[in-house]
Amino acid sequence: MVRRYVFGTPIETDAVINKPEASKGAAPYVEKNGDVLLYDMQPGDIVYGLGENVRGINKRGWIYVSNCSDDPNHQEDTKSLYGAHNFIIVSGEDSRPFGLFLDTPDKIVFDIGYTVNSRMTISMDSGSYELYVIEAESLEGIVKEFRQMIGMPFLPPKWAFGFGQSRWSYRTSEEVREVVRQYRSSHIPIDSIYLDIDYMERYKDFTIDRERFPDFEKLVEELKEQGIHLVPIIDGGVKIEEGYEVYEEGVRNRYFCKDENGEDFVVGVWPGRCHFPDMLNDEARKWFGGKYKYLLDKGIDGFWNDMNEPAIFYSERRLRMVFDKIEEYRTMNLDVKTFFEFKDLVASLEKNPEDYRSFYHNYRGQSIRHDRVHNLFGYYMTRSAGEAFEELEPEKRILMFSRSSYIGMHRYGGVWTGDNKSWWSHLLMNLKMLPSLNMCGFLYSGADIGGFGSDATEDLVLRWLALGIFVPLMRNHAADGTRRQEAYAFGNTEAFAEIIGLRYRLLPYLYSEFMKAALKNEMYARPLGFVWPGDSIARRVEDQLMIGESIMIAPVYEQNAAGRVVYLPEPMKMLRFAKGDVTEEKVLPAGHHFVEIPLEEVVLFIRRGHILPLASGGERVGDIDWNDLKLYHFAGPGALYELYDDDGISRRVELEKNLRRLVL
Amino acid sequence: MVRRYVFGTPIETDAVINKPEASKGAAPYVEKNGDVLLYDMQPGDIVYGLGENVRGINKRGWIYVSNCSDDPNHQEDTKSLYGAHNFIIVSGEDSRPFGLFLDTPDKIVFDIGYTVNSRMTISMDSGSYELYVIEAESLEGIVKEFRQMIGMPFLPPKWAFGFGQSRWSYRTSEEVREVVRQYRSSHIPIDSIYLDIDYMERYKDFTIDRERFPDFEKLVEELKEQGIHLVPIIDGGVKIEEGYEVYEEGVRNRYFCKDENGEDFVVGVWPGRCHFPDMLNDEARKWFGGKYKYLLDKGIDGFWNDMNEPAIFYSERRLRMVFDKIEEYRTMNLDVKTFFEFKDLVASLEKNPEDYRSFYHNYRGQSIRHDRVHNLFGYYMTRSAGEAFEELEPEKRILMFSRSSYIGMHRYGGVWTGDNKSWWSHLLMNLKMLPSLNMCGFLYSGADIGGFGSDATEDLVLRWLALGIFVPLMRNHAADGTRRQEAYAFGNTEAFAEIIGLRYRLLPYLYSEFMKAALKNEMYARPLGFVWPGDSIARRVEDQLMIGESIMIAPVYEQNAAGRVVYLPEPMKMLRFAKGDVTEEKVLPAGHHFVEIPLEEVVLFIRRGHILPLASGGERVGDIDWNDLKLYHFAGPGALYELYDDDGISRRVELEKNLRRLVL
Repeated sequence: MVRRYVFGTPIETDAVINKPEASKGAAPYVEKNGDVLLYDMQPGDIVYGLGENVRGINKRGWIYVSNCSDDPNHQEDTKSLYGAHNFIIVSGEDSRPFGLFLDTPDKIVFDIGYTVNSRMTISMDSGSYELYVIEAESLEGIVKEFRQMIGMPFLPPKWAFGFGQSRWSYRTSEEVREVVRQYRSSHIPIDSIYLDIDYMERYKDFTIDRERFPDFEKLVEELKEQGIHLVPIIDGGVKIEEGYEVYEEGVRNRYFCKDENGEDFVVGVWPGRCHFPDMLNDEARKWFGGKYKYLLDKGIDGFWNDMNEPAIFYSERRLRMVFDKIEEYRTMNLDVKTFFEFKDLVASLEKNPEDYRSFYHNYRGQSIRHDRVHNLFGYYMTRSAGEAFEELEPEKRILMFSRSSYIGMHRYGGVWTGDNKSWWSHLLMNLKMLPSLNMCGFLYSGADIGGFGSDATEDLVLRWLALGIFVPLMRNHAADGTRRQEAYAFGNTEAFAEIIGLRYRLLPYLYSEFMKAALKNEMYARPLGFVWPGDSIARRVEDQLMIGESIMIAPVYEQNAAGRVVYLPEPMKMLRFAKGDVTEEKVLPAGHHFVEIPLEEVVLFIRRGHILPLASGGERVGDIDWNDLKLYHFAGPGALYELYDDDGISRRVELEKNLRRLVL
Repeated sequence: MVRRYVFGTPIETDAVINKPEASKGAAPYVEKNGDVLLYDMQPGDIVYGLGENVRGINKRGWIYVSNCSDDPNHQEDTKSLYGAHNFIIVSGEDSRPFGLFLDTPDKIVFDIGYTVNSRMTISMDSGSYELYVIEAESLEGIVKEFRQMIGMPFLPPKWAFGFGQSRWSYRTSEEVREVVRQYRSSHIPIDSIYLDIDYMERYKDFTIDRERFPDFEKLVEELKEQGIHLVPIIDGGVKIEEGYEVYEEGVRNRYFCKDENGEDFVVGVWPGRCHFPDMLNDEARKWFGGKYKYLLDKGIDGFWNDMNEPAIFYSERRLRMVFDKIEEYRTMNLDVKTFFEFKDLVASLEKNPEDYRSFYHNYRGQSIRHDRVHNLFGYYMTRSAGEAFEELEPEKRILMFSRSSYIGMHRYGGVWTGDNKSWWSHLLMNLKMLPSLNMCGFLYSGADIGGFGSDATEDLVLRWLALGIFVPLMRNHAADGTRRQEAYAFGNTEAFAEIIGLRYRLLPYLYSEFMKAALKNEMYARPLGFVWPGDSIARRVEDQLMIGESIMIAPVYEQNAAGRVVYLPEPMKMLRFAKGDVTEEKVLPAGHHFVEIPLEEVVLFIRRGHILPLASGGERVGDIDWNDLKLYHFAGPGALYELYDDDGISRRVELEKNLRRLVL
């Protein structure tokens, strides 16, 4: 059951599409104290949710701020990442679970036992917001109720479940071709190549640098013939440049965000001086969405939206101020106080909170200061694309994922989890974020495999891939200046081919589970506590997941480990894959087991009574033979797996029609 | 057996005090290729060592640069911390282990399977260095050989094994008194309070701010009566200020490092413009060491040496250059290239490699550019104090630990591991560094409990203390601006008192094991692989340690964990402490066990055939009754524990005379 409580005069976010009637009276569970909601946690309570955030699947013990931020340092003490996903579930040891969704487009602070161990406080920026209280018998029931309310997730095309390779940046057509050549000649399966900012002319959205990509259209065509999709990036800021159509149209039609004097607000991002399209303005949004046609027309069928928190390197005004102020430090004896002031002055240029209070949207006819609706920018940018795609490509799914997001955006695109690092801890964080994002509606998601910033090692990328093969968005991406980390860039290319190849063997199952989860408002990846809520050990497991109904994964995320301890809440059948094939099937009793997992191998665990259909693989999604599936199982005769399949491209899908019964 | 190989004309570091004759011919194990040493690792090889560094006890899979650095961001991809500890041990699965020590005061790069998984390359900055190859039957044998060669570690006074509280900064006498009052009134044991930079007058070494500490001498006395030692910080740079004695003497006697024109080199650190005392110059070192007398005379008997990598915020010359260059960016369109250039320009002020090539030491009569001897600065600063203490306090151990270090410094002081963060991963890093430091001679060491930077939570500090009670240097320390994390600062003060209290119950055992390890050139904390080298699982355990001969620890280092999996290589007896006392004794068979460990409890494991003597505790080290020990054990009648004890203060200690046989 969902109850909705309205406080003040909330700004509509369009997060919820199926709103229950507003309830009167006090909301249950939480105590309202001004703009703060309080809840006293029991020692055994676990708090799930908050989507894209650092730390555990259990969010207790830290303070999280919903304030979409461009922050490439995802550390334990990071409070805000790129998304704002204000949905939590409290799971008591003995009590019925309940969920809370706070719907407001501005900042929220979730203090989940940071200040006082046993106390949760949710602090709103303003007195206007909507609170949804969700109750059900089970954790999955709560997720289902919530997801029904916020609508069905974005469905990517089937090819987007293939492996993708990205880098900031592949700088020329030739470099793209070379990457593809390397993959194809090493027989490492791949379905997509991503273009980061350098394909554009001076970082201008909806342009192509014709010096470096003179034959862009031909390249798209050529790759398509090889079964590879080219996926360009689109940024949140539009370059100020005379003669640049997008800029000129935006100025002419007043489609850009304004400063307090009504002038187009000037910020610095990749191209230098930019304006922000007013994504919240219906007309501007429609206009910006229409611009994707420029690339659709060239055969592009997938995009990623970046820098849409929106990221700000500096505002023009602050930049001038800082340069003036720097002068004052010139003649000082810079000591502990003044030297750090000087450093902070320069550091304060980026994402300065004051700058976010200095520009305005025209939202539903009203001028609204940006900070009041900050968390919607990325959502509405992606919505602009999503709505355009529905018009421009009514028959075809277009791949779309975004860096910034808010609940509701999940209907228009997936998310990647931004600029992580080549750290082992970020491999584990990838695993932990997955179910939290699923709860919030984001099914199509993934982290940059191998890590974006910093330098990767061969073993890190291999281990990360061994997790990544279970993650819907499976993409290797790395930053400018870092070590090359393509699957062929290290010594042991065969192992890379085998592990990525396994993705293609698993794909019918993974796609089936993804689509069923999307269509039935379920989770694709579940924490063990969702499946075994009565098992006190399972509830605390932070490094294993159920993927779909049949399998549990327990990846290795520590360097130099020969294996790891795996917890089985019930007997399961372990499947070991070596050289791309099953080399061991072994039933293990419930309990803790140390399982050896060499670098080149993958293990997974089949749940009792369940079936894992396995294809023979392929080098691109289109190669996979869905009619030639081998059924691995830990079940008796008559056991059933319902395989979902479709053409992988049509927007209109029907669950029942597309189910195939596989019986032992 | 130790063999020494000399290449080129090495600069003497005084790391090794017992040098074997130089060997002729090629060194075994490694292949020399120019200034690079190569070793091909077997898949099962573990590489131990490198002292203070990030990542695992097993150093494989990363690149480490010995280049003492002031870097408060200890991340997975950090390559240099504050120390340079060029000792490694390669432990093969089937082959005899061997150790390598590279003795050179400049930079070394250890690529231990980063570039190529199976390959170790050690790259020297110059062709002049000494290589020691150490062989023995066991890992412990290698450590013993190495440690015999580098000399006995610094012995701290017994009180320095008590708990210490620090913060940047306790700013007044009154604040110090208040901290003590809080500890004493909460009955949380404590033996020391640390003074960070603000006790000084304008951050000038060997001064006291008389406005904030008008009664410094009285404070020292008063605290001493309460059994509390005040431990002030000393920095590596000397403020340029007319009338300041240390500055004026240094200038007059040419005791400061020079720039290339022979002028005193000017750098910015805490006080602003400073000079570096030339710690490598015998005369200057003697002079600087003598300055500690100023505080010894006031009753101070412990110090910590900081900023001695040496840290550089800026050099005067670079600062001027940067200010000039900034002007050029004023009028540009700052885009992806120029904006980051501008930011990097400001960032490049700190620890700029060029600045480290811009000043000179007078070392043994020769002018040597700093970068050639960079890794000795912290060592020689601490040596200056250590040598002075021997003269000034010939009968008394003075507590001393340093941030920067090089092997050899372990004879003059311990180390704390610098500016960590309030991160769970840094709790684990504390554990991992401990044995690595022990190998290199640093027995008295510890990390800032609760974390220096970032904000701590109650559970983090409790869990960290539950490790910290086993760490020789047990100190809670936090940075300016962070949340208060004293043991009384959170709700559950009783649990803090109980866990810290346990330290005082364990102290006779811990002190005994520490002193035996120091006097016998053994390790106080050992990785499991040292004890069970034939156990392939034990060899890979990175989160448990043997502490002394009798006990194994397995602390919880994950938030919200109800317990953890512990690996027992052989049957052990688990001891559970709750409310400060043993509440469970249970023999567990070899293998993996999930052990519940509530936040307020501590478990440890007694090794078969061994005894753990436990005192009844106290609120300061002096309170502990060493004659009233209860023997917990996993052994039969006749089993023996040799307890080391002494007066805890005399410099001269004799192992045999101070051993007491405790028999079951």
